[in-house]
Amino acid sequence: MNWESNVRKVVPYVPGEQPSGKVIKLNTNENPYPPAPGVEALLKNYDVSVLRKYPQPDCRTLVEALAAKYNVKPSQVFVGVGSDDVLAMAFLTFFNSDKSILFPDITYSFYDVWASLFKIPYKQIPLDDDFKIVTSDYKAENGGVVIANPNAPTGVFMGLDGIREILDANRDVVCIVDEAYVDFGAESALSLLPEYDNLLVIQTFSKSRSMAGLRIGYAIGSETMIKYLNDVKYSFNSYTMTALTLELGAEAVRDDEYFKATCEKIIKTRENLKVQLRELGFDFQDSKTNFIFAKHKSVSAEYIFTELKKRNIYVRYWNKPRISEYLRITVGTDEECDTLVVNLKEIIAQGEK
Amino acid sequence: MNWESNVRKVVPYVPGEQPSGKVIKLNTNENPYPPAPGVEALLKNYDVSVLRKYPQPDCRTLVEALAAKYNVKPSQVFVGVGSDDVLAMAFLTFFNSDKSILFPDITYSFYDVWASLFKIPYKQIPLDDDFKIVTSDYKAENGGVVIANPNAPTGVFMGLDGIREILDANRDVVCIVDEAYVDFGAESALSLLPEYDNLLVIQTFSKSRSMAGLRIGYAIGSETMIKYLNDVKYSFNSYTMTALTLELGAEAVRDDEYFKATCEKIIKTRENLKVQLRELGFDFQDSKTNFIFAKHKSVSAEYIFTELKKRNIYVRYWNKPRISEYLRITVGTDEECDTLVVNLKEIIAQGEK
Repeated sequence: MNWESNVRKVVPYVPGEQPSGKVIKLNTNENPYPPAPGVEALLKNYDVSVLRKYPQPDCRTLVEALAAKYNVKPSQVFVGVGSDDVLAMAFLTFFNSDKSILFPDITYSFYDVWASLFKIPYKQIPLDDDFKIVTSDYKAENGGVVIANPNAPTGVFMGLDGIREILDANRDVVCIVDEAYVDFGAESALSLLPEYDNLLVIQTFSKSRSMAGLRIGYAIGSETMIKYLNDVKYSFNSYTMTALTLELGAEAVRDDEYFKATCEKIIKTRENLKVQLRELGFDFQDSKTNFIFAKHKSVSAEYIFTELKKRNIYVRYWNKPRISEYLRITVGTDEECDTLVVNLKEIIAQGEK
Repeated sequence: MNWESNVRKVVPYVPGEQPSGKVIKLNTNENPYPPAPGVEALLKNYDVSVLRKYPQPDCRTLVEALAAKYNVKPSQVFVGVGSDDVLAMAFLTFFNSDKSILFPDITYSFYDVWASLFKIPYKQIPLDDDFKIVTSDYKAENGGVVIANPNAPTGVFMGLDGIREILDANRDVVCIVDEAYVDFGAESALSLLPEYDNLLVIQTFSKSRSMAGLRIGYAIGSETMIKYLNDVKYSFNSYTMTALTLELGAEAVRDDEYFKATCEKIIKTRENLKVQLRELGFDFQDSKTNFIFAKHKSVSAEYIFTELKKRNIYVRYWNKPRISEYLRITVGTDEECDTLVVNLKEIIAQGEK
């Protein structure tokens, strides 16, 4: 078929499996707890006839709730269909030069996919052997910088001093700090916004707000930056967020108490899981996220991954250079983690034979 | 700010106003009737805890419902966040050559915005003086063709013979037929799919299915075409549709009886409105959509638009070449159209003085 010669051919991102049925799902960093109680109440009383109309193109219900929560102006907030949509829009908007953008070699594996899709040149900068970002590597000329902090799938957090160093060295390009996991004990770069007009911070409702199914991500930056982002969004799709999503998302943001309590529960479970994993012979960098990226001292990651799956326990495994001996294990409920540990113990005993 | 030099600068699409409060809203072609009754029932009983998890990346609940309805394979159906998202993805995927894509000069005003955003060269081909597409103009070498059928904002429908002629002349490029308004009495090009592997048909839930607020659009084409579209989608955002949207959308598709009854009501109101508008001195091409694109014989469109707005009645007006004497009036309920006609009568009497 001749039309195929005009097709943009890409190697797409492969999301983690979404198995259905009775499984313990610790493979896509979802939150084990339900969304804030107000979300359910709002849904039950929702006036369905509203759906016949287009939603707010400026998403103001949600934008205003986020602005109030993070103490910025609504004109500094951009929302999208998950942080993936926000990141895609940001790549399309801000990385429009011939210079390579920079991001780590081990990081969210969507960054190189977006760069390829939009034909943005890029360089992947190696993390050091402890999976830490070497800030001096980000001082060469470039078309932009993207840092996941805490990083995924490593879970490693870089302090704001490091972020500041990268921002200082890159005043003339946009630096994206992707904070999908920041709410589980790390520190946000949002506090640096008043000092840096080249900083764009991106967060998501998919992890700490238990709403992966509702597709909400957001960016906070200078008014100028958000204006450019909105221009591109309005050139792509004027109405990205469903009317329901705007209401339910705003409600989740308003319940700060539930949000904090949920994050604290996950942090507590994570710290317990760390102790148990070490006892089982796993090694890992300290994680400030809702997952642990761990390597076993003697049993291969692929073996453990496959055996866990046979037992209906899903974790994430990549057969990729430098990380093929690691498993990324999402922090679930205490019960789920206990079941995981019991099974790991058996699998490791088996594997060590 | 230096980073601004790397920004993709665009002139975004401007959506119709979304006024709140007590207004008669006939400006964005929304459906005056609520979504199918099953949608409400499903929403009230929805298990909110599901939202903590990612939705189906392949959107299969909705894809399968659409495939069953249109009697195609699920692998021939692509869904997105409104037909705008589907169109944006299709432009990005299929119009990846140096040759100009072709579309009419008067048509959905998002086409040139997407072309600009993605740096796709394009040529706008003039409609004739009756706002009809001149099929022979689409036989020059090109990088793709986009036809809205029925066309917007004109409401004019081209029979399938015309579509066939364009498809025959363009076997080596993708031809998109955008059928946002097809359910109000026009004929779909879906029946041509078995014959043409270069055809992609795009439809939406925003008009005939009363779900603009839920953001659902879809494309139906050959399996090869849908595969390419999905590859690009997975390179942009793996999870575009909320878990709720997939369920509610599928439910709306299943209730074919309600769908047909609603479309028939709107067609009936439209035919009545045509008679009344002609009596008031309006002229228009026959419309097979849920709107009428009308010009008054003596009073200017801008004047009528402004006066209607003062009376809280919103219609759509573009101050653009060739159409600045036209108003696009959405077909509302009988009551809304009666109120419109009463007000138009007064405004025209006033304007003719």
